Amino acid sequence: MRLSDGRELIYFDAAARPGRDAADQRGLPPATADCELRYDPLLRAWVMYAAHRQDRSFLPTAADCPLCPSAGGRRTEIPAGDYEVVVFENRYPALLGWANQHARAGELLAARPAAGRCEVICFTSDHEASFADLGPVRARLVTEALVDRTTELAALPGVAQVYCFENRGQEIGVTQPHPHGQIYAYPFVSPRTSQLLRSARAHARRTGRNLFDDVIAAERADGTRLVRSGRHWVAFVPHAARWPYEVHCYPLRRVPDLASLVPAERTELADFQLDLLGRFGRLFAAPAPYVCGWHQAPTRTGRRDFALHLELFTVRRSDDKLKYLAGSESGMDAFTNDVLPERAAARLRELGR
Amino acid sequence: MRLSDGRELIYFDAAARPGRDAADQRGLPPATADCELRYDPLLRAWVMYAAHRQDRSFLPTAADCPLCPSAGGRRTEIPAGDYEVVVFENRYPALLGWANQHARAGELLAARPAAGRCEVICFTSDHEASFADLGPVRARLVTEALVDRTTELAALPGVAQVYCFENRGQEIGVTQPHPHGQIYAYPFVSPRTSQLLRSARAHARRTGRNLFDDVIAAERADGTRLVRSGRHWVAFVPHAARWPYEVHCYPLRRVPDLASLVPAERTELADFQLDLLGRFGRLFAAPAPYVCGWHQAPTRTGRRDFALHLELFTVRRSDDKLKYLAGSESGMDAFTNDVLPERAAARLRELGR
Repeated sequence: MRLSDGRELIYFDAAARPGRDAADQRGLPPATADCELRYDPLLRAWVMYAAHRQDRSFLPTAADCPLCPSAGGRRTEIPAGDYEVVVFENRYPALLGWANQHARAGELLAARPAAGRCEVICFTSDHEASFADLGPVRARLVTEALVDRTTELAALPGVAQVYCFENRGQEIGVTQPHPHGQIYAYPFVSPRTSQLLRSARAHARRTGRNLFDDVIAAERADGTRLVRSGRHWVAFVPHAARWPYEVHCYPLRRVPDLASLVPAERTELADFQLDLLGRFGRLFAAPAPYVCGWHQAPTRTGRRDFALHLELFTVRRSDDKLKYLAGSESGMDAFTNDVLPERAAARLRELGR
Repeated sequence: MRLSDGRELIYFDAAARPGRDAADQRGLPPATADCELRYDPLLRAWVMYAAHRQDRSFLPTAADCPLCPSAGGRRTEIPAGDYEVVVFENRYPALLGWANQHARAGELLAARPAAGRCEVICFTSDHEASFADLGPVRARLVTEALVDRTTELAALPGVAQVYCFENRGQEIGVTQPHPHGQIYAYPFVSPRTSQLLRSARAHARRTGRNLFDDVIAAERADGTRLVRSGRHWVAFVPHAARWPYEVHCYPLRRVPDLASLVPAERTELADFQLDLLGRFGRLFAAPAPYVCGWHQAPTRTGRRDFALHLELFTVRRSDDKLKYLAGSESGMDAFTNDVLPERAAARLRELGR
């Protein structure tokens, strides 16, 4: 369905539900956004500009939450009186619309419209819950919604990569406490993914093997940083983790994206996510703020080399200290980490249930 | 001189001063540190581990500040009763000592001792001051100290790059409010610098010209993002700035490092720094937190291609909002910026005095 300003909204339910045809009664003016992409010729990366985002609502109370269902006379982003999982276009997108302009990466001051799409995914209508509370059925439904969105968005013209992620906690700048994630359909391959693919290609040239396969095999053989091993997935703190507590989670069968996972892999993924987020919730006196990203291959390139994986990390390094990105990290991309990966892994293993 | 735990300390004075032979009376146990470097084969970057840094002192009051001079019976990191500029080895270094091991970058789980050195530079003995308050003579003395340290550290075995920077403000994680900067002698070329040099080499192959020269020429010709132009230096908000307020400052004569600057260039650099930091101080209701980095060429590679420059940015985007690096930035290195560079430059121009 469409919201009153024209944005798309999609309900995902485990079974058919009534009330999904409720209309958005808010009569919002048409959604507009002032998005632009610019190319940095020194770092060879696109930067997204979105001046309208300065006006985003900030940490609303539950009574004003735009991500709760519409109920009791209150009208939110979701017209239905309840929902399981719902996805809609972000009201304050960093990317919007479609353009046929190509990257003019050779030019020094290149700019183009920030084509692409930013969506919000609400994991539950319960304002007070978190992903770790969802339970296996709902977590699996979230995966199905992400598969659907990735497939739909990848088919749109100009989308180079789809990235799904959850930011959780005020400490990393979350402006909406309601449990939700985001989906970015980038019109470029992200700098991080480009680097991973460059590394994979260099490794393949040198060894004839896949870098992700070899890293996973090395971590499993070493064993000291494993957090959990399953039938289909393995989770470990990487040997050279950048963050105080950081876990990477790979399927044992290399696939490019979420849509390529078979049902048994999807079910175990939900189980791993709930388990790992539960451990992060017990690391400190209060649940750790975190970023959880579903890293998928670009839509058109590198699909044979890339390995779908989950990256989960927290910026919290102790009950009362955060890891900040200051001079060395922000200026030089040279990370310092005060927590040894083996110690982080041992701690996360202890926190299993 | 040496502090009581063996760390080196160096005074920099505009003229000879008494009391520089005062001994450290604290009788500290020998400095030890547990530093390690690990290589990330996916991101092709070294990460620094320093478990002992978890115990750093955090936001001491002026009465307990370890960076104030030793006076009134209180003993600090600086034995003298006063100082102008002083540099000493960091008590909680991320890099320490010398090893002859080479980077085993081809190995998947490569680690080595974190050879290198981390120094602290105090800009003034005045606990309440900031760099913007130093005045031209002191700011120039700071530059001379950085030139000295860069030259000395670059000559040590295994040092691949020297990076000088100042972190300012609790919002970016500063643990010591006393005005000071840091000097990192890395045993590797930083990922950021490696990327800049890759970009420069690709540009040179394509055009036969230097990328930094061309970017500076393009910014000067465009003019809309210039903040200040001088006889020897130019300061602008980059066309694709990542941070809400970000200024890059280049000498008009391309040089690889601070030591290559002639006296007139050093004097104007001090003037530019004081001016730009003053503008950052007036951007918001309270002085903006910032990172200021002096980007220099590696000690042995890329010296002909690289251009010394200063990068200054703040994470503050309005009086009550910060820019956080969440899912897209931390996970994908894909930055969103809510402040257009032309608007940031216009605002910074208005704030000149």
